[in-house]
Amino acid sequence: MTQPRYDVVAIGNAVVDVIASCGEDLIEELELNRGGMTLIDEARADELYSAMPPARELSGGSAANTLAGLSTLGLQCAFIGQVADDQLGGVFAHDMRATGIDFDTPARDGEPATGRVLIFVTPDGERTMNTFLGAGQFLPAAALDEALIADAGILYLEGYLWDPEEPRKAMRRAIEVARKAGRKIAFTASESFVIDRHGDDFRAMIEEGVIDILFVNEGELATLTGEDDFEAGVAAVAGKVPVLVATRGEHGAIAVANGERAEVAAEQIDKVVDTTGAGDQFAAGFLSGYARDASLETCLKRGAIAAAEVIVHYGPRPEADMRALMAEKLG
Amino acid sequence: MTQPRYDVVAIGNAVVDVIASCGEDLIEELELNRGGMTLIDEARADELYSAMPPARELSGGSAANTLAGLSTLGLQCAFIGQVADDQLGGVFAHDMRATGIDFDTPARDGEPATGRVLIFVTPDGERTMNTFLGAGQFLPAAALDEALIADAGILYLEGYLWDPEEPRKAMRRAIEVARKAGRKIAFTASESFVIDRHGDDFRAMIEEGVIDILFVNEGELATLTGEDDFEAGVAAVAGKVPVLVATRGEHGAIAVANGERAEVAAEQIDKVVDTTGAGDQFAAGFLSGYARDASLETCLKRGAIAAAEVIVHYGPRPEADMRALMAEKLG
Repeated sequence: MTQPRYDVVAIGNAVVDVIASCGEDLIEELELNRGGMTLIDEARADELYSAMPPARELSGGSAANTLAGLSTLGLQCAFIGQVADDQLGGVFAHDMRATGIDFDTPARDGEPATGRVLIFVTPDGERTMNTFLGAGQFLPAAALDEALIADAGILYLEGYLWDPEEPRKAMRRAIEVARKAGRKIAFTASESFVIDRHGDDFRAMIEEGVIDILFVNEGELATLTGEDDFEAGVAAVAGKVPVLVATRGEHGAIAVANGERAEVAAEQIDKVVDTTGAGDQFAAGFLSGYARDASLETCLKRGAIAAAEVIVHYGPRPEADMRALMAEKLG
Repeated sequence: MTQPRYDVVAIGNAVVDVIASCGEDLIEELELNRGGMTLIDEARADELYSAMPPARELSGGSAANTLAGLSTLGLQCAFIGQVADDQLGGVFAHDMRATGIDFDTPARDGEPATGRVLIFVTPDGERTMNTFLGAGQFLPAAALDEALIADAGILYLEGYLWDPEEPRKAMRRAIEVARKAGRKIAFTASESFVIDRHGDDFRAMIEEGVIDILFVNEGELATLTGEDDFEAGVAAVAGKVPVLVATRGEHGAIAVANGERAEVAAEQIDKVVDTTGAGDQFAAGFLSGYARDASLETCLKRGAIAAAEVIVHYGPRPEADMRALMAEKLG
């Protein structure tokens, strides 16, 4: 097998984050799912936006954020996702390309608009996300560049995009292409509500050995396994995926790979500003080590460093010189 | 004369700022006017955007930023400016209204798009602005709500918008309406290139006593008066406007009103992140005192506090609780 051209190709939501600080009272008043992610339709998006304080717009999307982190860390990356032919689609595409990521999925004409995520950040730094998928829910399998997928060492998929039908079909096709080419499949469960709806799919994929690297947080692991106890959840999945990465927010993270287990504490930080992108950047840090055959412990440490960088500023993508930061922190 | 409904109504650019950090080398490579503001056409805007690192989008516009500051400080404000009927126009309008500002200028159909300012921020925090005015250059006098202008204590105008013909006519008409209603006219010179092109207009307005409150920085004062020496520049203008406010960046600011002179030092800050909006927020702080009959010294101090808040984060509008900050700093 030849060396792949890309380290990672990802399929994910192509959305712009609309981020505002707000008080706890607004979360209650708007009846938001505090700390979680909720899919909303355009009418609800308009309603929430009207009630939202002044905001800043930054490109987002879980897998896209992870790729931005990976690219900043020096990996060769490509993205597949659906924007509309509008200004926010232009912003998303610009930011991907300006980060050094190949992104050539053609923009979609007409309605709906490019997806957006209305993010309310409370004083504790917690983000409450409300996602209007927009054009993203119409990513067709026909838009996949199969040669590109076959030419990437890792195919990275986000669970969020498993929910709408067309992208789910596209991701299933992408998995076939990647496996046929002997590539690895990384999958992030994204959010418990996705597992509530599609847990049978995910469990079947795990049983069939389709997933090589699984990213979950504590809550998702419980939903996926039905085990409220973290260790019981780990035990239920660890033997079925070559690499399991389970994050626990401020309590750090663990990874289990082929029977070896490693742990990492969360990095010490002064003040959490905005947790948006913490999980995405943890995955970026981890994969940046994994793709270069680092030890499991180093992969976790890189994940923790990347997650800590993104939560001390607004926005879901790194702002620091990540290669310099890794060098400084890892010595 | 009845108490006006609004403290301040402003006419200005309705633009979205596109802000990216970059190295000094990119400023040179793109041949940008470092530290200044340059008007660009759409082709150049596309060219510069393609070369720009990943960015964040925040509502901007000089007078609009000042109003956002004033509104956050508790003043009643209204804005007049031209956006297009597009996504960025929606972002601009949302952010104005969410800040508590009345903004009812109808969006303009068709091309050009809502204006945007491509802002390159170098490691020293200096911003280099490249403005595509877009729809803003077509603000017609017909779009003015004259009853609203007559019902605001202060009409605030930005020099940037003196450059395109239609808004210039609109602002001349607005001045007539405000004067007839016995209101005050505040004017910010905005940038030396505007004075290069329209200095004769500005000097005539000053001589005719049309301007009640004039905001300039050191460079603009020199361009306006032809005096390289700061004190000579102040002497040349101070007797001709009821209130002159001249800012000097890190060297503080002075104000002269009816023969009284006051000075303020710049606030001490840890690290300048992005100077975008510093002058706009100085004006907001100053006017927030002026509108409440504060002493000249207090007005300047409020200006310095507001300017210091905005340069320690990305974006041209306040993020802090400004009323609490003023109370804390002024005791």
